[in-house]
Amino acid sequence: MTNIIPVIMSGGAGSRLWPLSRQAMPKQLLPLVTEQTMVQETAERFDGDIFTDPVFICNALHVDGIRAQMAEIGRDVSAFIVEPVGRNTAPCAVVAAVHAAAQDEEALVMLVPADHHVKKPEKFRDVIAKAIPTAKAGYLVTFGITPDGPETGYGYIAQGEALEEGVYKVDAFAEKPDLETAKAYLEEGRYAWNAGIFLFSPESFLGEAQSYASEIATEAKKAYERASHNGNVIDLNKEIFAACPSESIDYAIMEQTNKAAIVPCEIGWNDIGSYTSLQAARAEIKSDDQGNAINGSVMVEASENCLVHTDSLPVSIIGLSNVGVIVHEGEVMVVALDQAQVVKKIVTRLKDSGETHRL
Amino acid sequence: MTNIIPVIMSGGAGSRLWPLSRQAMPKQLLPLVTEQTMVQETAERFDGDIFTDPVFICNALHVDGIRAQMAEIGRDVSAFIVEPVGRNTAPCAVVAAVHAAAQDEEALVMLVPADHHVKKPEKFRDVIAKAIPTAKAGYLVTFGITPDGPETGYGYIAQGEALEEGVYKVDAFAEKPDLETAKAYLEEGRYAWNAGIFLFSPESFLGEAQSYASEIATEAKKAYERASHNGNVIDLNKEIFAACPSESIDYAIMEQTNKAAIVPCEIGWNDIGSYTSLQAARAEIKSDDQGNAINGSVMVEASENCLVHTDSLPVSIIGLSNVGVIVHEGEVMVVALDQAQVVKKIVTRLKDSGETHRL
Repeated sequence: MTNIIPVIMSGGAGSRLWPLSRQAMPKQLLPLVTEQTMVQETAERFDGDIFTDPVFICNALHVDGIRAQMAEIGRDVSAFIVEPVGRNTAPCAVVAAVHAAAQDEEALVMLVPADHHVKKPEKFRDVIAKAIPTAKAGYLVTFGITPDGPETGYGYIAQGEALEEGVYKVDAFAEKPDLETAKAYLEEGRYAWNAGIFLFSPESFLGEAQSYASEIATEAKKAYERASHNGNVIDLNKEIFAACPSESIDYAIMEQTNKAAIVPCEIGWNDIGSYTSLQAARAEIKSDDQGNAINGSVMVEASENCLVHTDSLPVSIIGLSNVGVIVHEGEVMVVALDQAQVVKKIVTRLKDSGETHRL
Repeated sequence: MTNIIPVIMSGGAGSRLWPLSRQAMPKQLLPLVTEQTMVQETAERFDGDIFTDPVFICNALHVDGIRAQMAEIGRDVSAFIVEPVGRNTAPCAVVAAVHAAAQDEEALVMLVPADHHVKKPEKFRDVIAKAIPTAKAGYLVTFGITPDGPETGYGYIAQGEALEEGVYKVDAFAEKPDLETAKAYLEEGRYAWNAGIFLFSPESFLGEAQSYASEIATEAKKAYERASHNGNVIDLNKEIFAACPSESIDYAIMEQTNKAAIVPCEIGWNDIGSYTSLQAARAEIKSDDQGNAINGSVMVEASENCLVHTDSLPVSIIGLSNVGVIVHEGEVMVVALDQAQVVKKIVTRLKDSGETHRL
């Protein structure tokens, strides 16, 4: 039987969810959607004999937190690979592949972000199983999300010819579209959202990486080989890893290779990428009759489709529509959910004004 | 020269401004618009030889606070008349008149709410001076505010025949109108907002009160006569005052008497009766280029005409329009300014659920 090594990329800062997500306790370490934290949800997703214990790639700051959260749900961690600096997903994927190959030459790597919500994990496991032969045949398989609307916030992947039932060659990657284009994609039917979830054999992936992103392949591998080890914590060599180009796996490899495959799937996926999507995910699980998703001591009057979260002071809202109110760790943010992308600007202002202690 | 005794009615709860306004520290004791508290602003308004030291009619809870705030601005208080329970403005006015008559038979009473903002106090003093002869002649003079828009949140007073230049007999009192009626009033020109500000001779007022509201006149007078005195604090007799009918001076007397007069005036008046009017008053004094009135540690992005006030946690707002965000004494409220009247419902819910400690 093929082993699958889940490699959970947990290096993100989640700054679009500030002030919920903070440097010391970012998005992936928080119970954002369910009562489990995002890394707990993600680890639980890879339940079954086919999966090994997970590997986390993360910042040194978060090793202890992840370890404690995994202990909480009774899960062992195979290894923590510590990134001394963030270098986007391409170096991360190379390190994952090199590490996996060192563990088990026959295993596949399941590379996933730590901070996504999947409402239907059984369906996710089904499509993973379906993708195994294709991945074993050398394809770099990505799992695309079948759109349920003309979303402009995600990249899209167009499927080409069928390889297996429900598995296709990738025809093209497309940037975040405008609304008209997104509607056309939806109409056409062969486009899926790019969710940044991959299944591949280390050998095949490393071959493609060497062909299309040789500097990244070489340097990231070297950073892993010259890592220092402490128990199950692997500290990538800082100097070498920092010198590695910072590129996404899509840009550096997936968009270049002829071996990209896609499995479109409907797994109740939500990237919790903004307060807008957090509101949607929470409201699906629990909301009042007006679609307000509430967490903490909150009174609501004449409001609809709001997200209210408080860890401390009681909150009252009146007459609001599609607004997020976040009271968390000494900060209050009130944001129109259709402008949730602007949260980044606040984070930038705090950085620029030297108020990094608030991040 | 005629003395004018300012009697400042300071018994309100200001619950429409919860959580800024609290039982222990209501609206009138807060620096809501300027750096002075509302009672300080109000007392300073009666500046000049013509005015005696002010009298406050208030709740026992607030005597010390008002005394301290008057000391802060170097003002003596003539007397504190303590209401054991609130009985609306008619009994209050009777008590004011009885008290004034006992001090100085020739004096006039200037009866005013403690919690209004007047941007142009000199103009206010000018119209007071203009009204003196009419008040001395026995008219109960009210100061109406010349409308600057079709406001539906105030009662209106229609002026009748002229008594002096700029002083008119009252033709009629009108309830809060609908928008169409308010527009008609504005068009017609002879309607002013009822601001609840009065100038009268005690003798004349008490005569009219006896004619039109004899029970209130009799009982309120008795509550004053059987008050207990402690320094300059006069505690109205609780049993008697509590038995007094609770009615407004307008309903009980002004709408009945033939001696009602009105002085329309433009004094930059704002009753700070809701977060909507508080936003307007603050923005007139200081706002950013988008009309946001900000108080405390606040970051603003893509927002306009908001009111943000925090006494503690820093607040960030994004993409909001006409929204009030109040962080005060352990409570957070976010309210659409066009629905600010709903704040009352939150206060009622807190009362009903026994959470009076939060009021």
